[in-house]
Amino acid sequence: MKYRIEKDTMGEVKVPADKLWGAQTERSRNNFKIGSPASMPLEIVYGFAYLKKAAAYTNCDLGVLSEEKRDLIARVCDEILDGKHDEQFPLVIWQTGSGTQSNMNVNEVIANRAHQLAGKTIGEGEKTLAPNDDVNKSQSSNDTFPTGMHIAAYKKIVEVTIPGVEQLHNTLQKKAEEFKNIVKIGRTHLMDATPLTLGQEFSGYASQLEHGLKAVRNTLDHLSELALGGTAVGTGINTPKGYAEKVAQYIAQFTGLPFVSAKNKFEALAAHDAIVESHGALKQLAVSLNKIANDIRMMASGPRSGIGEIIIPANEPGSSIMPGKVNPTQCEALTMVCAQVMGNDVAISVGGLQGHYELNVFKPVMAANILHSAQLLGDACVSFDIHCAQGIEPNHETIKKLLNNSLMLVTALNTKIGYYKAAEIANTAHRNGTTLKEEAINLGYLTAEEFDAWVKPEDMVGN
Amino acid sequence: MKYRIEKDTMGEVKVPADKLWGAQTERSRNNFKIGSPASMPLEIVYGFAYLKKAAAYTNCDLGVLSEEKRDLIARVCDEILDGKHDEQFPLVIWQTGSGTQSNMNVNEVIANRAHQLAGKTIGEGEKTLAPNDDVNKSQSSNDTFPTGMHIAAYKKIVEVTIPGVEQLHNTLQKKAEEFKNIVKIGRTHLMDATPLTLGQEFSGYASQLEHGLKAVRNTLDHLSELALGGTAVGTGINTPKGYAEKVAQYIAQFTGLPFVSAKNKFEALAAHDAIVESHGALKQLAVSLNKIANDIRMMASGPRSGIGEIIIPANEPGSSIMPGKVNPTQCEALTMVCAQVMGNDVAISVGGLQGHYELNVFKPVMAANILHSAQLLGDACVSFDIHCAQGIEPNHETIKKLLNNSLMLVTALNTKIGYYKAAEIANTAHRNGTTLKEEAINLGYLTAEEFDAWVKPEDMVGN
Amino acid sequence: MKYRIEKDTMGEVKVPADKLWGAQTERSRNNFKIGSPASMPLEIVYGFAYLKKAAAYTNCDLGVLSEEKRDLIARVCDEILDGKHDEQFPLVIWQTGSGTQSNMNVNEVIANRAHQLAGKTIGEGEKTLAPNDDVNKSQSSNDTFPTGMHIAAYKKIVEVTIPGVEQLHNTLQKKAEEFKNIVKIGRTHLMDATPLTLGQEFSGYASQLEHGLKAVRNTLDHLSELALGGTAVGTGINTPKGYAEKVAQYIAQFTGLPFVSAKNKFEALAAHDAIVESHGALKQLAVSLNKIANDIRMMASGPRSGIGEIIIPANEPGSSIMPGKVNPTQCEALTMVCAQVMGNDVAISVGGLQGHYELNVFKPVMAANILHSAQLLGDACVSFDIHCAQGIEPNHETIKKLLNNSLMLVTALNTKIGYYKAAEIANTAHRNGTTLKEEAINLGYLTAEEFDAWVKPEDMVGN
Amino acid sequence: MKYRIEKDTMGEVKVPADKLWGAQTERSRNNFKIGSPASMPLEIVYGFAYLKKAAAYTNCDLGVLSEEKRDLIARVCDEILDGKHDEQFPLVIWQTGSGTQSNMNVNEVIANRAHQLAGKTIGEGEKTLAPNDDVNKSQSSNDTFPTGMHIAAYKKIVEVTIPGVEQLHNTLQKKAEEFKNIVKIGRTHLMDATPLTLGQEFSGYASQLEHGLKAVRNTLDHLSELALGGTAVGTGINTPKGYAEKVAQYIAQFTGLPFVSAKNKFEALAAHDAIVESHGALKQLAVSLNKIANDIRMMASGPRSGIGEIIIPANEPGSSIMPGKVNPTQCEALTMVCAQVMGNDVAISVGGLQGHYELNVFKPVMAANILHSAQLLGDACVSFDIHCAQGIEPNHETIKKLLNNSLMLVTALNTKIGYYKAAEIANTAHRNGTTLKEEAINLGYLTAEEFDAWVKPEDMVGN
Repeated sequence: MKYRIEKDTMGEVKVPADKLWGAQTERSRNNFKIGSPASMPLEIVYGFAYLKKAAAYTNCDLGVLSEEKRDLIARVCDEILDGKHDEQFPLVIWQTGSGTQSNMNVNEVIANRAHQLAGKTIGEGEKTLAPNDDVNKSQSSNDTFPTGMHIAAYKKIVEVTIPGVEQLHNTLQKKAEEFKNIVKIGRTHLMDATPLTLGQEFSGYASQLEHGLKAVRNTLDHLSELALGGTAVGTGINTPKGYAEKVAQYIAQFTGLPFVSAKNKFEALAAHDAIVESHGALKQLAVSLNKIANDIRMMASGPRSGIGEIIIPANEPGSSIMPGKVNPTQCEALTMVCAQVMGNDVAISVGGLQGHYELNVFKPVMAANILHSAQLLGDACVSFDIHCAQGIEPNHETIKKLLNNSLMLVTALNTKIGYYKAAEIANTAHRNGTTLKEEAINLGYLTAEEFDAWVKPEDMVGN
Repeated sequence: MKYRIEKDTMGEVKVPADKLWGAQTERSRNNFKIGSPASMPLEIVYGFAYLKKAAAYTNCDLGVLSEEKRDLIARVCDEILDGKHDEQFPLVIWQTGSGTQSNMNVNEVIANRAHQLAGKTIGEGEKTLAPNDDVNKSQSSNDTFPTGMHIAAYKKIVEVTIPGVEQLHNTLQKKAEEFKNIVKIGRTHLMDATPLTLGQEFSGYASQLEHGLKAVRNTLDHLSELALGGTAVGTGINTPKGYAEKVAQYIAQFTGLPFVSAKNKFEALAAHDAIVESHGALKQLAVSLNKIANDIRMMASGPRSGIGEIIIPANEPGSSIMPGKVNPTQCEALTMVCAQVMGNDVAISVGGLQGHYELNVFKPVMAANILHSAQLLGDACVSFDIHCAQGIEPNHETIKKLLNNSLMLVTALNTKIGYYKAAEIANTAHRNGTTLKEEAINLGYLTAEEFDAWVKPEDMVGN
Repeated sequence: MKYRIEKDTMGEVKVPADKLWGAQTERSRNNFKIGSPASMPLEIVYGFAYLKKAAAYTNCDLGVLSEEKRDLIARVCDEILDGKHDEQFPLVIWQTGSGTQSNMNVNEVIANRAHQLAGKTIGEGEKTLAPNDDVNKSQSSNDTFPTGMHIAAYKKIVEVTIPGVEQLHNTLQKKAEEFKNIVKIGRTHLMDATPLTLGQEFSGYASQLEHGLKAVRNTLDHLSELALGGTAVGTGINTPKGYAEKVAQYIAQFTGLPFVSAKNKFEALAAHDAIVESHGALKQLAVSLNKIANDIRMMASGPRSGIGEIIIPANEPGSSIMPGKVNPTQCEALTMVCAQVMGNDVAISVGGLQGHYELNVFKPVMAANILHSAQLLGDACVSFDIHCAQGIEPNHETIKKLLNNSLMLVTALNTKIGYYKAAEIANTAHRNGTTLKEEAINLGYLTAEEFDAWVKPEDMVGN
Repeated sequence: MKYRIEKDTMGEVKVPADKLWGAQTERSRNNFKIGSPASMPLEIVYGFAYLKKAAAYTNCDLGVLSEEKRDLIARVCDEILDGKHDEQFPLVIWQTGSGTQSNMNVNEVIANRAHQLAGKTIGEGEKTLAPNDDVNKSQSSNDTFPTGMHIAAYKKIVEVTIPGVEQLHNTLQKKAEEFKNIVKIGRTHLMDATPLTLGQEFSGYASQLEHGLKAVRNTLDHLSELALGGTAVGTGINTPKGYAEKVAQYIAQFTGLPFVSAKNKFEALAAHDAIVESHGALKQLAVSLNKIANDIRMMASGPRSGIGEIIIPANEPGSSIMPGKVNPTQCEALTMVCAQVMGNDVAISVGGLQGHYELNVFKPVMAANILHSAQLLGDACVSFDIHCAQGIEPNHETIKKLLNNSLMLVTALNTKIGYYKAAEIANTAHRNGTTLKEEAINLGYLTAEEFDAWVKPEDMVGN
């Protein structure tokens, strides 16, 4: 491989000649061989591209950067956002906990690419842009990385998670309407209980996701606060006056999202409770989705020796050994995602609680985990929606059979003959393997007419 | 011990003669000998007392319960809320997952105590109130327990957690103001960084708690939704028309808190995402408090061989072997609470994700954990506030010494001579054990006058 | 209330006159009003009683404590172990993270009680024993508390957890044998699969618990290591030569358990990985038990509209509104315990990872959580065993019906006609609602005789 | 793009013409667009390659597969293990929870590649090998996936995790020896305490890792148990007699690792407690490493305004804004890994506890998480070792200064003048800002000679 020499304050480093990055990126590649290469999410890099461009505009507006430099920086940032330099970001999550090297990776790529755009060859001639003094002007890793991760997480949540959950929610809502007259047996403790409609069950699922979406949205305010302008420790050292507010406005403009400057920059560097907060809501969604997916696979179980009240789409052969088997595979993918999100929540919390003094140095792991969860939840909801939820159909015959079997229809008699006599009827029918009606009459508590008038499943499901 | 005979639908049970509970409570005592006795939190029992009274009023208003019965039920509920029957609730968390036996415990105690209030002896004569048909009228364990736990959790959060956190927040805020002119060294990665004020550090802590309080308050809407009226499976079977809304209004009136009837009762029985949501916010507070307590104990470390920038109150002898030792014990108690809350969050989530069909049967464990966390956080904040935060004092001498030592004051020169030369100055001073000023002059980058004019810690802390 | 004056190195404190504790206990009571009073587990106090007695014997043997003092200390320790002073330990978990005040609580109670045993009145005359110089001789909180918690946790695991799990294991093993010829349908993905015996299912449960018990036992070595002898920071300052080994021998002798002196005392004070390790195995048991309890409640579901393959004991009325309902309440209690243990594992790990320098100050929370889990798991297994597992009976009729329905019996044909043709038979039967045999013949792949010879559930369950 | 038609029991599917996979892989690609493509770890694929080859050999030995087919299968498996087909496994973790599609992916690739090796074109002519009937012979996804994940996890742990931890352990051990005479101040509660040697501190770290390694090794027995031979539900349907034991022997032979056939196949399919168990030990290592890394960064803090007792290597410029800053970046990478492992532990446990009946369908998420943790821990230990631990040097001057300052040297006087007088000396010196010696003499408790003879740090560190 061919190399060129790059320099930083520690000296010279050999960098692959065809790469845009510089000395500090290369040092990080060599010093942190942990897990898969390039594990730092590209979404963070894109977050950086937005903020570097915004910083350039702000610096220029405030008179500390020339228009030429601003435009060069902006041009490279746009290229990055177009995905043209994805292979220039080889670093891993498991680096400095402030993400310093990823900040420098972006600074170096912008500087070197700007050199090219200025018609020069990297490593030759005076630098067109200095990575630290120009690209990183009025910035520190300590405020850029949290800004980049808030941009990335916010975007992911509003662009992937929320639409995905909403899509599934809409289907569940539609099914709730569609199934609103299908009376079926209820189950509590997994045991036969009083009836409800299949639509009511689905309305509960829809309601869970509504609450979950509201919970996620409640956290977005905190996540919209950007650390940029705090620089090294939150004081904003080396920033021009008015910088923090202006740079947040530019970021809001470039992303089309309501980002604001964090009211307290000391918190914004030293703690990432906003990530903890937003992920807490994602975890709540995971809890909800796990419940929903579980119910659906239990109701779809069978086809002959399970519950079998609903039929879900058969998307693939279910078994490599059992011919003709169909499995609730979308439920399984979704619940595995839920398990992962539960775990990610702990990873984030453990990172969040260990900030020290002016800096939390668990930024990359917190960022990576929230992006992971936000993507998986959104994708899994869409997948589950398309390949499972939309295709759910009731199995009317089974539903009817299981409903009419149930001894819990006796509950309707509580208000007529009291809990104790009703229990006696149910217990006797259970013991004898008979019907409620037979035993109600045998025991002399009701006439057949009364039974038929009072024990009507369709009247037991509310209104 | 003396016993009397109580009956339920399964038959006779011997109950201690001096106790108010009945057959089902006694069965539960014998069937669930798991952990400490009476571990079911009394707050849940009180939640039940509110709702049983509200149900009695509603049932009476709607014409299905007599005024005499209503008043008897209400009278016993008031006694329970006055703490007069605390020893009548011997059951454990680890019972039926719907909390059925705790519901019956309350029903039985109310019925038996009402019998006494009616001037009769328990077990003799016709029952004044029937536990199921009167006290539990228009109710099921499945909607009462979640109602009771929402009441208990909501009350605990607004009466203990929020005031406790607010009290600590106010002190931190005051300290932020008080310390606003004390310039000190900043630390990032635990390493010397550019300066800030001690007040700025405390403002960051205060800001964390503000965000945390907002997050907690955001969750209260969901927690204010009550399941009552859903009865067995959410359909409201065996409730009179208008019951759900009215009973929620009575509960709101009796508690003075803004409880409402849950819009979707199917969710309200089958999922407890509201508990997951509120506890997620409590966990966020734990993450914040852990960071704050850690900083304070590190800054107070020493007294001679640590950081020693602040002095915290000495509340007790610190060591049984090292004479004269003083320790940051309140920080330790608080961070232990944070660890517990982190764990409780997982317990709650694991319970929350395993609901099945119409019922989540992890109610008691979820309720107990949120009450535990809410109490501990509130208490620990108050304790930490009184015995530590309020007494924090700066150690001016040490702060000054550590500030002036710092090589990171060089950062102010970035905008004057560029990052690279500034780095050269700092590195040389570090290598030689000299001062920045000496090396800045030696290297010929600045005059002494320039150095003094540009490198002023007090100008590096923003405004 | 009447008080007496007690003193420590910080001055005078008023202590309730009827209590044995002294100044430092009283300070702690006042300084840590967090959660329920006296939450520090008594098992820890008993652990202290063992070690204080052992220390007294060792100190005497090594010539630094008189026989009179040794015997007085030992006498009070024996009284404590007899449960005679349980009300003398009012402190909470949420105190100093080293448990210093609980150590002093024990020291003070021993000293004051010894004064009484010496025929004197507390607070009058020269102290018979000095809490620090005599009772705490050759000790520090830093080595006593971890020793006390290892003793407590080890005892709890071998006396409660392991026997409880073994009891349940034995029942499951017996059921595996008892049910070994009951062929039933298997279920994978909750869907109908090839047959197995009910006994084979139970053998899987038994095997899980065997592995779990082995995992727990694997951790006992680490837990048997005692910190005592490390004193303040692990160096053993102020201990006589040979103390650490001898005191461990005495503890082993007094408890009848194989405790040894930790090879590395620095680890033993600064890290509690042994607690993390043992609790990791308890969490594994929780994972196993959750699976087992889930299976049992699903197989017992119904009675008429669920799976209904097994019948579990009806221990109590299941519902306050649905008469005659029976629920898998022991499964619910057990799985709630599992959720708690999952949470406790995180609390312990979060405490474990935050040790600093020579001391981990999350000792009480770690100790309390492992004791909680160990007790709950043991108790819950016994409860589940007695009230559920032992009474499990197969529902032969349902098992047979569900077995013979299954389309997955077709799997036996793979080796005869290949996976593809077998799948065609199953799919056709599923589509037409017919039997495998009908379609196998219709499709011309088998004769009726071949079908009967090859598709025999009882031949599909291995040997 | 060019496509060819592939078929499975559900019909035809278009597959990219240049790929080796077949219909079911392609269905899965389309049905599970969740997260990054190809997220299923290649290590699992390699685990499959071992087991497919072993199954072919066993099937051949037992007379149910021809030598030609065996050799073709083996040849492709060897190619896979040589990394020649890495791009043929495009599936994600978030698929069927049994990993069925990944099993079929391997089966299809082997079959199609064998067709090529037989000199034919994929899709033309009769299939050389049938994916289900030949490659998957005597197998099911239900026993192959857990076998593949045990192989992968076992290999990763013994090839990456254990050697990585051992490497770090060896360095810490060497440092313990190297630093054994460097007396320094101890710190408990972060506060000054009695002295110990720097070597003793490092010996504690080494001891933690020894215990951790032992804990990991204790779990390998369980992990060495292979499910293969259980096929669909654990009964071994469609396997020839003797298959399970023989196939495990072949796997042991091919991998060089001591794999055995699981004693209970029902557990081996339905529960993955072995993964829970092994990861529990990995989590313990994370807890230990977090403590170690924290200590090292705190001791290295400064350089001028922190603790500064040790010097760690400066590997890269530490800050993009603060010139000359050096940070404990390896500590940060390592502790971020620890946070991730903590989270992964919960993901695994949540997956583990939700097995149903004969199958746990959280296999891929459990497998991916343990592989993730095992890799990260091993890599991070090596990185930390090379770039940090090996280069740790004591800062003798600072160590000495901080040691001699300490008031806790007074502890040595406990055995001479008692705890109370010693406390008085320390408290007075603290109040007056004087030395212990001055106040000891002032208070008249010791002569200068006695002080010098008794208070010697080097005598306070044990032996």
